[in-house]
Amino acid sequence: MPVDPRRTISDLEQLRALTADDHGAQRIAWTPTWLKARAWFQTRLAQLPVEHHLDAAGNSWTTLRGDSERALILGSHLDSVPNGGWLDGALGVLAAFEVLRSLAEDYHGKPPMTIRLVDWADEEGARFGRSLFGSSAFAGTHTIQADRGRTDREAVRLEDALSQCGINVEHIGNAGQERGQAAAYLELHIEQGPVLEGMQLPLGVVLGTKGVERHAITFHGQEAHSGSTPMAVRRDALAAAARLALEIRPIARKHPDAVATMGSVKTFPGIVTAVVGRCETTLDMRDLDAAVLASMLGEAQQASQRFAAQEGCTVEWSKIWSIEPIPFHPHLIDLCDQAVRETAGQSHHLPSGPLHDAAEVARAGIPTVMMFVQSLNGLSHNPAENTRTEHLELAVQAFDRLARKTIALQKS
Amino acid sequence: MPVDPRRTISDLEQLRALTADDHGAQRIAWTPTWLKARAWFQTRLAQLPVEHHLDAAGNSWTTLRGDSERALILGSHLDSVPNGGWLDGALGVLAAFEVLRSLAEDYHGKPPMTIRLVDWADEEGARFGRSLFGSSAFAGTHTIQADRGRTDREAVRLEDALSQCGINVEHIGNAGQERGQAAAYLELHIEQGPVLEGMQLPLGVVLGTKGVERHAITFHGQEAHSGSTPMAVRRDALAAAARLALEIRPIARKHPDAVATMGSVKTFPGIVTAVVGRCETTLDMRDLDAAVLASMLGEAQQASQRFAAQEGCTVEWSKIWSIEPIPFHPHLIDLCDQAVRETAGQSHHLPSGPLHDAAEVARAGIPTVMMFVQSLNGLSHNPAENTRTEHLELAVQAFDRLARKTIALQKS
Repeated sequence: MPVDPRRTISDLEQLRALTADDHGAQRIAWTPTWLKARAWFQTRLAQLPVEHHLDAAGNSWTTLRGDSERALILGSHLDSVPNGGWLDGALGVLAAFEVLRSLAEDYHGKPPMTIRLVDWADEEGARFGRSLFGSSAFAGTHTIQADRGRTDREAVRLEDALSQCGINVEHIGNAGQERGQAAAYLELHIEQGPVLEGMQLPLGVVLGTKGVERHAITFHGQEAHSGSTPMAVRRDALAAAARLALEIRPIARKHPDAVATMGSVKTFPGIVTAVVGRCETTLDMRDLDAAVLASMLGEAQQASQRFAAQEGCTVEWSKIWSIEPIPFHPHLIDLCDQAVRETAGQSHHLPSGPLHDAAEVARAGIPTVMMFVQSLNGLSHNPAENTRTEHLELAVQAFDRLARKTIALQKS
Repeated sequence: MPVDPRRTISDLEQLRALTADDHGAQRIAWTPTWLKARAWFQTRLAQLPVEHHLDAAGNSWTTLRGDSERALILGSHLDSVPNGGWLDGALGVLAAFEVLRSLAEDYHGKPPMTIRLVDWADEEGARFGRSLFGSSAFAGTHTIQADRGRTDREAVRLEDALSQCGINVEHIGNAGQERGQAAAYLELHIEQGPVLEGMQLPLGVVLGTKGVERHAITFHGQEAHSGSTPMAVRRDALAAAARLALEIRPIARKHPDAVATMGSVKTFPGIVTAVVGRCETTLDMRDLDAAVLASMLGEAQQASQRFAAQEGCTVEWSKIWSIEPIPFHPHLIDLCDQAVRETAGQSHHLPSGPLHDAAEVARAGIPTVMMFVQSLNGLSHNPAENTRTEHLELAVQAFDRLARKTIALQKS
């Protein structure tokens, strides 16, 4: 039986009915609604000749044993942000499920290689601020020391929330055992950006996830009375910050896929009658090329020093977080390109700005690629998140092709 | 007996000891500490041949009757902001007191014209957000309707706080009766800015108070993911706001005394991973020339529209507050200039950026002028507010000269 994309869409609609309210999807990891989504998914597996288990980090593994123990892994995540959309993560899991079902039928329950479906635990990090939780435990890049003390808004500790779900935080590293025999990892996801829609293309091949440099930048000037302080003697911390907010744009625009964002500006004292004495900002820069990212960061740092000096201010930088660019596997990128072309006629290669579980899998040395399907208006993490039905159908078909091409490559 | 500036400094030190704590002056209007300051001031009047009363708005009037009922009014305010300085307002009241004492002695209790000392009620508006409370009631520009419902941080109503001090908010307009027979108003104040210190001058003549245009300006763009949204398709509300923050500076610098300040910037959603969808800012522009102020406002509005359009955003303006420029009286400016030159050798004319009670008095049509004494580091509304002792002494001497010149002018 060929893959049937209408089943995937029907599954997504069922999941939405079960786990969304008027404000959107509420499948926040380690909450009852997330557990309900996972329990529903178990009912969908009932007819299939598969085994199921949770690993030590709470990742949910469904295994269709094949002739070879070498495993093709298909996956994504069922968890969502609060007030999230119906597709982010869930599309990847339910498309993988439809491909698994189709393969089980076509190969009469015994494909040439083992097929595993993974629903990663807590991709979003929405409740405890720790994204890629399960996939980083799988990859061995987890951080128990840093994560043990995390709390949610109600001061519930991550450790205790995990325990409620049967997970012992001390042992999450044992999820690394799942890496054995992994041959490749494939993930379908909505783009969550406007690139494919702008090109009027349904599908794209993801080259990798961009590296990220995330910094807090604070300018210190001199608070002063807005009425009695002449322009010439001001040391206006906002002016220095405003110049940086504008300068990061030409710095990023030198490179085709680079982005740079000042997402937060806070002014102190922040009143209408005072020149800003202190201005706290954040900077997020991303590119797929580590050298480009490093040069962008250096340019931004130099610009901030120059603007601070020119405005009679000082500036301090504090790193919030960074990750290197993670390129996907060249052979799998080729196969994904073929699958997209055969299904949709035309392909486009693009890096992913957002991180995904696939990045952690690739960091673990497992050949990995992702496929993107167009997002409407580039919206995600939002109940208005959507994708055209015909594009969802093409996506499931192309992802099925990619899986079969990957199996064929492994056999050869 | 000539004026004795050391008495004024001693009075200021006594007042500080009585009404300041480790964080600065705490003479917030309509509070027990303010009433304590006023009660202490009454004890200082005991030896003088004067009458005293509170008017309907809580302004404190001390009258030395003269040969003529025409009155020279000297004054300022004893109230302070929380954690304020020892000089803001108090210097003007206590210097006026020393001048009154000296005149009473020199004229044996009966000067050629009536001399009145006023301690205005609630110049700062620190507790209820209504500055120039008493002087606006005096001037007839008060706003009972708007003020009746004001509350402090503990939700105490202005109306009830006034009532505790014996003031009925419905009758504050009766303070206008005090305008009868007013011939001139003189006020000594610290500069609260860096201009005189920058010119190494102890004293300055105030030309008037600048007009103020105070607006809330909000840019609306499109919130977007910082990783997945290419630079070219962003509608970044912060970028439009940053361009305005920088553009207001050349707009103001075209005019010698004009100032323009963006004091507050708020970003929404204001997180490191999102392009700013909405940016709320404030703008405060001031100049002594109404035409200059109007043209600055027009230029800023046009610039904001241009930047919004160029960034794919929209912009909306909402007036917070405005007041026209209030020039002081040319003859009194001349007398003040003479008094400053005779005392300190050199004079400088400057507008006041901050508002003062003198502005309300001038609005009522009473000839008015202010004298400024140098502030150290331009600081005020701060416990570090200070002025050199020798400058305070020169200020009291020059203010006494100004009062005597004004009396002489009225006689002639």
